[in-house]
Amino acid sequence: MGFAATPAPPYYLVVFASQRAGARPDDGYAEMAQRMVELARTQPGFLGIESARGEDGFGITVSYWQSEADVVRWKADAEHAEAQRRGKREWYTEFALKVARVERAYTGPRGPRGTE
Amino acid sequence: MGFAATPAPPYYLVVFASQRAGARPDDGYAEMAQRMVELARTQPGFLGIESARGEDGFGITVSYWQSEADVVRWKADAEHAEAQRRGKREWYTEFALKVARVERAYTGPRGPRGTE
Repeated sequence: MGFAATPAPPYYLVVFASQRAGARPDDGYAEMAQRMVELARTQPGFLGIESARGEDGFGITVSYWQSEADVVRWKADAEHAEAQRRGKREWYTEFALKVARVERAYTGPRGPRGTE
Repeated sequence: MGFAATPAPPYYLVVFASQRAGARPDDGYAEMAQRMVELARTQPGFLGIESARGEDGFGITVSYWQSEADVVRWKADAEHAEAQRRGKREWYTEFALKVARVERAYTGPRGPRGTE
């Protein structure tokens, strides 16, 4: 997945930090996670996504959106809402989500998209 | 490290996504990373930090701050600035950084700190 190719600010991001419950390979999580990335890419205002999860099961996914309205619409998407329900019930022991307005961004040392 | 115990918005966050260069256990990175977390905790306005890195070397660290001025001051901290220079030179093949103003936050299903 790697780095998201985001435009110049302002735009919005969502930080989703989560602790996986005891991960079983057959619990459907990997398929859901892949499907949600594919689905997000089709949504209005989607700019990109970055994700990392360590061996301890703690992960951070950051998705980028043109506007707050795009964030709200994505949260309410029916298939995404069902994934959220399963996440609460089955896949995560805890999560924390932040919606934030990006004001500055830069990259280095090989990132050609820096703005600072 | 786990979840940051952040207050009710508004506050600021910094998303630091990075791709590690070929990681050698003796390259000083682990010591620097731990030291930077310790140092950040002593800074004015520091609210918390979350971090995850996968086996592919791609990682995301999110730090939380009371104000944008706190973010700017932390970036300019002398010891942190030296770590940034070493990071560009030695530890990362690429990174991307965003500074954003948190507008909404919530947690689930075990998070007692939800605001939505």
